[in-house]
Amino acid sequence: MSAFTSPNAFADPEDSQLVADAKKARVDPAEHWYTERDVILYNLGIGATEKELQWVYEGDDEFAALPTFGVVPQFAASSGLPLDWLPNFNPAKLLHGEQYLSIKAPIPTSGELVNDVRLMEVLDKGKAAAVTTIVETRDKHTGQVIFENQSTVFIRGAGGFGGKTKGNDRGAASAANTPPKRAPDAVVEEKTSHSQAALYRLSGDSNPLHILPEFAAIGGFDQPILHGLCSMGIAAKHVLKTYGSYSDIKVRFAGVVYPGETIVTELWKEGGKVIFSAKVKERGTTVLAAAAATLVEATKAKL
Amino acid sequence: MSAFTSPNAFADPEDSQLVADAKKARVDPAEHWYTERDVILYNLGIGATEKELQWVYEGDDEFAALPTFGVVPQFAASSGLPLDWLPNFNPAKLLHGEQYLSIKAPIPTSGELVNDVRLMEVLDKGKAAAVTTIVETRDKHTGQVIFENQSTVFIRGAGGFGGKTKGNDRGAASAANTPPKRAPDAVVEEKTSHSQAALYRLSGDSNPLHILPEFAAIGGFDQPILHGLCSMGIAAKHVLKTYGSYSDIKVRFAGVVYPGETIVTELWKEGGKVIFSAKVKERGTTVLAAAAATLVEATKAKL
Repeated sequence: MSAFTSPNAFADPEDSQLVADAKKARVDPAEHWYTERDVILYNLGIGATEKELQWVYEGDDEFAALPTFGVVPQFAASSGLPLDWLPNFNPAKLLHGEQYLSIKAPIPTSGELVNDVRLMEVLDKGKAAAVTTIVETRDKHTGQVIFENQSTVFIRGAGGFGGKTKGNDRGAASAANTPPKRAPDAVVEEKTSHSQAALYRLSGDSNPLHILPEFAAIGGFDQPILHGLCSMGIAAKHVLKTYGSYSDIKVRFAGVVYPGETIVTELWKEGGKVIFSAKVKERGTTVLAAAAATLVEATKAKL
Repeated sequence: MSAFTSPNAFADPEDSQLVADAKKARVDPAEHWYTERDVILYNLGIGATEKELQWVYEGDDEFAALPTFGVVPQFAASSGLPLDWLPNFNPAKLLHGEQYLSIKAPIPTSGELVNDVRLMEVLDKGKAAAVTTIVETRDKHTGQVIFENQSTVFIRGAGGFGGKTKGNDRGAASAANTPPKRAPDAVVEEKTSHSQAALYRLSGDSNPLHILPEFAAIGGFDQPILHGLCSMGIAAKHVLKTYGSYSDIKVRFAGVVYPGETIVTELWKEGGKVIFSAKVKERGTTVLAAAAATLVEATKAKL
């Protein structure tokens, strides 16, 4: 049994009893199988084009999943962890706050994976709860760990239960990633399509917030919003196209993109790390902040 | 055993021995299962938009497959029928000539279907062979027939084997569908996206002709071409949006669309029949001809 799956791996003496009990809950490992078609669908969902054959044509010699595909196999497992033990829990009040993805092995272009999901950290932010899940995704047959994801969600109105208010340092996952004061080293613009969210949701996040106007209105939005993980995938594609492969990536979701808007990614290379942020060109709103990726050094490029 | 599956259903005294023997070949019924996600993917592939919730959101009360989805479950079965018994058969010389689809029952939004495929007609056109397959698609569990498809392909360079040169009258499937001499009763324009073929091919036709420039060049095209069945689906959507549901549809593929071009569908309503044609706005080329759909009468609209 790995440290990850030991019963008390994420126990914390500062937790309230409510949180300590919630952390003890276990869910069964969740399987996820996918095909090359699913990989292409994901790649198209984050804006890969018909000319980028390595991402849209399974017969290409370099055919590959874009690295942020790593959030897909774990999505159901991570978002399926019960949170109804929180006071005043309301799923319509849930917002995706941060995502950290570590890519630990080459990504199969099809496969059967298994996800182990755990409640990692629960913070009482007063008006909100901040809940971080951690998911380890491994090859079902070889056992090799391929991805680690840490997903933080904020549930508005669900705070006030006592316990920790500030998180532990979790290294790359919690780094502040403040951009340097100089102008960006690179800027990449990409216009999303009006049907971007309708397409992206086929990769597993079918929350009606991203397609149904009435539901988006309940969430306080003028129209359905693009998935945060889709914005992340698009900006991560900009990192990859500008500086090459990365082994981990972390973003904070700071604002929303409406499908059809243009995402502008500003990138700063600091040694082996790329710090980046993304905004919507049409409204000037920042959508991704405190974001960074760790580049795979040239010697590890063939990992 | 239905007439369709009787051993000699499509025997013809005018056939050459080569064709008569080919017609005797049997392939096992081919299963096809699909989910709501596959339906949405198809609908997006023929240009359904994020605002057309009945076609892109599985939670919509009116959620449905666009009727030309009927070509999808049978595609592998139809295109998988061996044709290498034809003289000088070369799959790179194959062009989709005509498609007829009859919708015989409400289309499940997910399901397990079974396809019975047969060689229906083989014509010797001298320089080419014209081969029509017929596929009956039924619900695996209830046995109800949902679709009938007739697909005609031309194989250039594969003629000269003797036998029939002209087809039998097959009713709607072979009707000439000449447009009336008046101006169209309705015209619908739709711009395809540059990634339309990259997306459409995820619905089952992964021929590299539609994505790989080198392969398209071998076929004699400047760039990858949109699937004929995708153009058909787009024009059929125009029929549906203009005049309502139809029970069968037939098109002849007269030219190609390059992804990104605009399809202009001209429609003439003649009683319960809609005759239509489609062209590419940018080049004036006709892409669908001799096309028609039989409207479902109001009394049958809730079939």
